[in-house]
Amino acid sequence: MLETIDLSQKLGKPQYKRIMKDLTLRAAELQRKAREAKIPVMIVFEGWDAAGKGTMINRCILALDPRGFNVNPTNAPNDDERHRPFLWRFWTKSPEKGRIAIFDRSWYGRVLVERVDKLIDKDDWRRAYDEINQFERQLADDGTVIVKFFLHISKAEQKKRFKNLLGEKSTRWKVTKDDLKRHKQYEKYRKAIEGMLEKTSTSWAPWTVIPSHDRRFATVKVFSTIIEAIEPALDRPAAKSPAHKRVILPKMGKSFLDKIDTSLSLERKQYDKLIDSCQKRVNRLEYEIFLRRIPVVIVYEGWDAAGKGGNIRRLTQGLDPRGYEVSPIAAPNDVEKAHHYLWRFWVKMPKAGHITIFDRSWYGRVLVERVEGFCRDDEWKRAYREINEMEEQWNNFGAVIVKFWLHIDAEEQLRRFKDRQKTAYKKWKITDEDWRNREKWDQYKEAVDEMLFRTSTSYAPWTVVEANCKLYARVKALKTVVERLEERL
Amino acid sequence: MLETIDLSQKLGKPQYKRIMKDLTLRAAELQRKAREAKIPVMIVFEGWDAAGKGTMINRCILALDPRGFNVNPTNAPNDDERHRPFLWRFWTKSPEKGRIAIFDRSWYGRVLVERVDKLIDKDDWRRAYDEINQFERQLADDGTVIVKFFLHISKAEQKKRFKNLLGEKSTRWKVTKDDLKRHKQYEKYRKAIEGMLEKTSTSWAPWTVIPSHDRRFATVKVFSTIIEAIEPALDRPAAKSPAHKRVILPKMGKSFLDKIDTSLSLERKQYDKLIDSCQKRVNRLEYEIFLRRIPVVIVYEGWDAAGKGGNIRRLTQGLDPRGYEVSPIAAPNDVEKAHHYLWRFWVKMPKAGHITIFDRSWYGRVLVERVEGFCRDDEWKRAYREINEMEEQWNNFGAVIVKFWLHIDAEEQLRRFKDRQKTAYKKWKITDEDWRNREKWDQYKEAVDEMLFRTSTSYAPWTVVEANCKLYARVKALKTVVERLEERL
Repeated sequence: MLETIDLSQKLGKPQYKRIMKDLTLRAAELQRKAREAKIPVMIVFEGWDAAGKGTMINRCILALDPRGFNVNPTNAPNDDERHRPFLWRFWTKSPEKGRIAIFDRSWYGRVLVERVDKLIDKDDWRRAYDEINQFERQLADDGTVIVKFFLHISKAEQKKRFKNLLGEKSTRWKVTKDDLKRHKQYEKYRKAIEGMLEKTSTSWAPWTVIPSHDRRFATVKVFSTIIEAIEPALDRPAAKSPAHKRVILPKMGKSFLDKIDTSLSLERKQYDKLIDSCQKRVNRLEYEIFLRRIPVVIVYEGWDAAGKGGNIRRLTQGLDPRGYEVSPIAAPNDVEKAHHYLWRFWVKMPKAGHITIFDRSWYGRVLVERVEGFCRDDEWKRAYREINEMEEQWNNFGAVIVKFWLHIDAEEQLRRFKDRQKTAYKKWKITDEDWRNREKWDQYKEAVDEMLFRTSTSYAPWTVVEANCKLYARVKALKTVVERLEERL
Repeated sequence: MLETIDLSQKLGKPQYKRIMKDLTLRAAELQRKAREAKIPVMIVFEGWDAAGKGTMINRCILALDPRGFNVNPTNAPNDDERHRPFLWRFWTKSPEKGRIAIFDRSWYGRVLVERVDKLIDKDDWRRAYDEINQFERQLADDGTVIVKFFLHISKAEQKKRFKNLLGEKSTRWKVTKDDLKRHKQYEKYRKAIEGMLEKTSTSWAPWTVIPSHDRRFATVKVFSTIIEAIEPALDRPAAKSPAHKRVILPKMGKSFLDKIDTSLSLERKQYDKLIDSCQKRVNRLEYEIFLRRIPVVIVYEGWDAAGKGGNIRRLTQGLDPRGYEVSPIAAPNDVEKAHHYLWRFWVKMPKAGHITIFDRSWYGRVLVERVEGFCRDDEWKRAYREINEMEEQWNNFGAVIVKFWLHIDAEEQLRRFKDRQKTAYKKWKITDEDWRNREKWDQYKEAVDEMLFRTSTSYAPWTVVEANCKLYARVKALKTVVERLEERL
């Protein structure tokens, strides 16, 4: 594959100067336009050691307005990064709408150095192709322009460059032992690089191999590729505005929610005994998962007033606050809105050994955002797959994922709303929005049904909790957590 | 000091239940009110091992709405944290307006474990008292309520608790070797704790020592202290709204800016030679400071159109993009506005070994925010001291701080504005705001004069750069960077 690349291409200095003057102005103008159009751009630089990544990145950023980009150097992962899936640190660095994120090396380290140096199993790097393609597709679907460069030089050229650098006292420090070791492994790396180019060149994020023997030729190629990638994105018709009308759904047959036995209940005495023993077990399990470095994600979804807060409290009462975090999900803030909707959940993914409890979650996309028209139809429809992919990636990393739908029937909700209104210290809990949501009960019900159907997976199953009786619901949820954790340990 | 604490205080169960029912409701209500009033709250838990910090924190958070707080456990610093001043990781975690940040251990580790275990020099922990008091005072001045608890138990009680835990199989794991080691050092720790209580009990952030032999007594004491700390903050009259009127200043004598010789200039030929040699030196220095782990902060301030962008570009042309970052400072976003104005600059502080170039900076507080009335008078007046303290703390950590004021005269600015307007590819650079700012030239001049006077320190001096001639200005700035770095190495 790489053999077909013509490395002899060159460009003379006068021609280069002339071309670059034009390309530099165009790149700067495109950056301004992309910012106005709120298009996020990701530019990835991979390449052989000494192929000139640093120089090339500096040339790019000197042409750009520094207010609009970030350069992300990729080193060996730090503690925080090692304790999360490998894509976590790149999700967290995905650019805001209108900004450019430049990556000096990237997530492709997974299928290059980590593969060649056998830092991970064969299964891991093979699966990484899929995970990377999913990552890039999700961002591209959300409007991100992704440009990926591989700066290519031959083994002989690399040798020559190392020799030149080593020959001069002032540049000797630039060549490390690792560089020389990798030089010897050129053929092994070539195989890995070709695998990478083959498996991860997609329509939404194609690779461009840059013949880099001649710096001038390479620079022109890089600039023109970036320009060619961004320009069409500017011409794309603006995404349709949110559909604020009622969404008509294909009926999915009898509602799953109707089949739930909401009469299940528990007596106080039994409850006290059960909750106490579960809390003790979960406290012990918290320590076990910490020792074993297992991340745990617990999701609470459910009808308004279904008792999520109280239920979560019974779970956390038994826990050490150093090991868990409750993450309540409200409407996204400015910064969150400027990213892919899954960004803020990736950011909050627990470290290995820790528990994050989400009070509402990414499922808002296919519940409230869908029903209220806060996102477009194509966006929430795409979300089922995106969510499954995210959960699968977390599961691949070893996470336990527990998801609860707290179910009450409409009559019980009404009773609770009224109770909140007349009890002084509960009054703040009930808002006009709750009443408005209640009017859309049937629409929400359809959305819940479809969510349960499309996102119940072997690695992240839903547990529907019958919640008309709060005591029953608390014990069931807590027992489920205990069982899922014990199953894993 | 600790000896005077009465550790025998107890509370019976029925009384406890009665009191706590009331306190819990009041705490929850106060949290809601504090959120509405946008008051940030910091609660610090320090204490002997086995004094019950975990239990106490869990009791607090179970009473609170999880949408409004974060628990921050404090472990040994990770890589990112070690490469910054010790307060960096606590600055970054200071709560947003209206939120509660709970710290399970805290910045006081600096004067406790790090002191006792001799992880740092005597100079370091002694200086830490000042740095901590500054940190807390800056946040308190900005409206943050700070509550600090020390959970106190006697050596005998600690011994008893460890024994009990070790006696049962299910709790044995809770006692670590470090715990037992620290138990033996009880007296050493007591000395450090008393030093801490003495040096860092301030009117803006007082310590409360909690006798913790009896859990019930301790819980009631913690809850009532928190309530007593937050309640008066709610009653405080709201801060006066921004002063949108012209600020009348005391004249500072002849303007320093008038004395600057703007006629200084450089010829192209000389410039080419000088800039080239400076760039080579700075490239080499970038690597040296990386090896020596020195953080470098470079600040560019100056009149509109003074040439900051072009000047920064000449500096970065010689640099490896992996070692530096340009941080352009615009108006703060939502999240930034919800914090102390220095928060976003602490967050961006470079890692040891890296360079951050600020294109505008925290000096906006005493320039644009002052002149345009974006903050209150007491806020910008306080800022000089806050800024000096921040820069001193960074300097204490080993940072090199270089600050430029790029100075052009009013005629030169006008010439450049007009030039921008008539040149197609420069037109986007000039906005109505630039023209409006120009009309306030004299007000800005006074603000600049006062800034240069009040924030020129031995550890972070200003360099005024005569910038009517761009070539001269670029060489002068670059040479200054080279000299300041060489001076340090």
